[in-house]
Amino acid sequence: MSKFLLIPDSFKGTMSSEEICSIMEKAIRKNRPEAEIISIPVADGGEGSVDAFLKAMGGEKVTIRVKGPYFEDMEAFYGIIGAGRVGVIEMSACAGLPLVEGKADPRKTTTYGVGQLMEDAIRRGCRKLIIGLGGSCTNDAGAGAAAAMGAVFCDKAGNSFIPTGGTLKNIEHVDTSGLLSQLKGVELVAMCDIDNPLYGEKGAAHVFGPQKGATPEIVEELDSGLQHLDQVLQKELKLSIAEAKGAGSAGGMGYGMLAFFGAALQMGIDTVLDTVKFDELLVGADYVLSGEGKIDTQSIRGKVVIGIAKRTKKAKVPLIAIVGDIGDDIEEAYEKGVSGIFSINRVAVEYKDARKRAREDLYLTVDNIMRYMQAIEK
Amino acid sequence: MSKFLLIPDSFKGTMSSEEICSIMEKAIRKNRPEAEIISIPVADGGEGSVDAFLKAMGGEKVTIRVKGPYFEDMEAFYGIIGAGRVGVIEMSACAGLPLVEGKADPRKTTTYGVGQLMEDAIRRGCRKLIIGLGGSCTNDAGAGAAAAMGAVFCDKAGNSFIPTGGTLKNIEHVDTSGLLSQLKGVELVAMCDIDNPLYGEKGAAHVFGPQKGATPEIVEELDSGLQHLDQVLQKELKLSIAEAKGAGSAGGMGYGMLAFFGAALQMGIDTVLDTVKFDELLVGADYVLSGEGKIDTQSIRGKVVIGIAKRTKKAKVPLIAIVGDIGDDIEEAYEKGVSGIFSINRVAVEYKDARKRAREDLYLTVDNIMRYMQAIEK
Repeated sequence: MSKFLLIPDSFKGTMSSEEICSIMEKAIRKNRPEAEIISIPVADGGEGSVDAFLKAMGGEKVTIRVKGPYFEDMEAFYGIIGAGRVGVIEMSACAGLPLVEGKADPRKTTTYGVGQLMEDAIRRGCRKLIIGLGGSCTNDAGAGAAAAMGAVFCDKAGNSFIPTGGTLKNIEHVDTSGLLSQLKGVELVAMCDIDNPLYGEKGAAHVFGPQKGATPEIVEELDSGLQHLDQVLQKELKLSIAEAKGAGSAGGMGYGMLAFFGAALQMGIDTVLDTVKFDELLVGADYVLSGEGKIDTQSIRGKVVIGIAKRTKKAKVPLIAIVGDIGDDIEEAYEKGVSGIFSINRVAVEYKDARKRAREDLYLTVDNIMRYMQAIEK
Repeated sequence: MSKFLLIPDSFKGTMSSEEICSIMEKAIRKNRPEAEIISIPVADGGEGSVDAFLKAMGGEKVTIRVKGPYFEDMEAFYGIIGAGRVGVIEMSACAGLPLVEGKADPRKTTTYGVGQLMEDAIRRGCRKLIIGLGGSCTNDAGAGAAAAMGAVFCDKAGNSFIPTGGTLKNIEHVDTSGLLSQLKGVELVAMCDIDNPLYGEKGAAHVFGPQKGATPEIVEELDSGLQHLDQVLQKELKLSIAEAKGAGSAGGMGYGMLAFFGAALQMGIDTVLDTVKFDELLVGADYVLSGEGKIDTQSIRGKVVIGIAKRTKKAKVPLIAIVGDIGDDIEEAYEKGVSGIFSINRVAVEYKDARKRAREDLYLTVDNIMRYMQAIEK
């Protein structure tokens, strides 16, 4: 009997990770009906991450009422996996861009609900929280979430308030003592695949503000708000983390995760691999199949296939990458441990036509690899 | 040490078989410097076939003066391989379409020179002739070649003449006795990958006449000429072969090969495989790499990869097909013995862009297969 681990990233805009798992499984099953096949849909921290973790590991989906992006009441969810000890939250559940369609304004939106989800998970006994940053409509650097969990932000007049992107500039003082007691004994990991710093040209406001509805003027306003927050925290908490890689993710939520919550920012794929205990699953595995929409080595950070390769190489299990496009200069991918890279492009057509036949092409590509495997192993 | 046989078809319009062999060899050599690699460029019966055989087997290239398409004197060549016993002729050498560029007229052109090449090869001791049909500018059903080797065609008035496409209709009587004595003890194989009958809607004139310069009126004239020839030969030689598969190839040369020369019409790839003694080369081989511009199973006849699969399957050697496009419904290819089919399409672009990067893509595709092989074999 042979053992296969399937752990593909989504092909963005074409197929979800879960869908790819199911197509791969079908093609493998056809060729090796008796195979042990373990499917691990990959969470990227954005929408669908909670479901991916639940699918991969089993667990409970918790729905509670929290504050939405505009402090409105709404239902949001998170997951509890790992026998009740690990809470999985995607911030887009209550601070996601689709929630403010047509009325996006990153000056006014809050991550308050995210803090409520975190608090609920801790109250239910979770001792580790995984928070997916991604797809947010906010620019409050996590101040809303921190407030929900007990941090107190005061303005010049000494009045407490809940800062949003547009009012970060009014913060004069922060008291995090309430927050810290909440977090005692809780490990936090934030999934974050980007490198941007908190502010400046490559910061949260400049790079991601426009897609959240910010005009050039608003971008400047948001950027100085983030700078101001950092100055306050530098002074009050003796922190210097604005340049940390990923601080600028999710409207500065990466920064907030570090500053308020003492979280570790980790690549999504590493979080997934650690959480599903991938190294243990690798024991006795014959093949790992992964993949992504395009493999290249220009941006190694955040790349699913490369993240997996580091582990499979150590465990000496062949890693087969099945991808949409194969970029130039992928020598490094092999060096890092990928055994073979196969494109699903079976005919020479443009992407707009290729995507329509992607499911069938993926199935036939895996089928071909299985047939070939059979012939070679003989 | 591992042994590889490389026997790819050309990727029409992109890379010749010989070029593909050399790229494949480079990629294999990089991964397995010590491998034994045997390259067999595939002759398809058209231009370049003689060189392909000479490259694959070694031999002598003979150049002699013969008649060209318009009975003009010209230099043409053929090859002698197999220790002097096998002559290889491509009819395009003296009856090819490029020779009449700007003055093509299939009513007037002749295969006379082809007969002269055949005669010369026999005179030099060849006991087997391989004649590549393909790329011709003629429509004389091989009557010219037959005349060159001793057949006598007479008109109503009893005068002998050398028929061309436009004068086949004047044939009243044929005497093949001179021809037969020439051919005694000589085996003839014509390479022919198409199925068309001699005349009619799917016949030589209707299907291939236009690309040789025939107007619709001329096509009708040529078609009735072929019909007339067949009526004469039915009566005089008691032959009924106008419907034979391939009779309509090369302006009816397929028919002439059967009728005048008693040749066997054989798929090009089978001719190549037999000639290079492929089954003997397969002994001890670890992998065979083949390929073609597009693999599909709609037209199995003439397909290089499928032709090879029949042999590799019997010998239980894995056959890897590396192709441009992979057609639909290729299940049958696997059933016939192909172990794996890999497209060189590494990014989703149209053919016009894909062809520009075909060489690099082919190299990287073979490189990937070699790396993967290494990982799987471990």
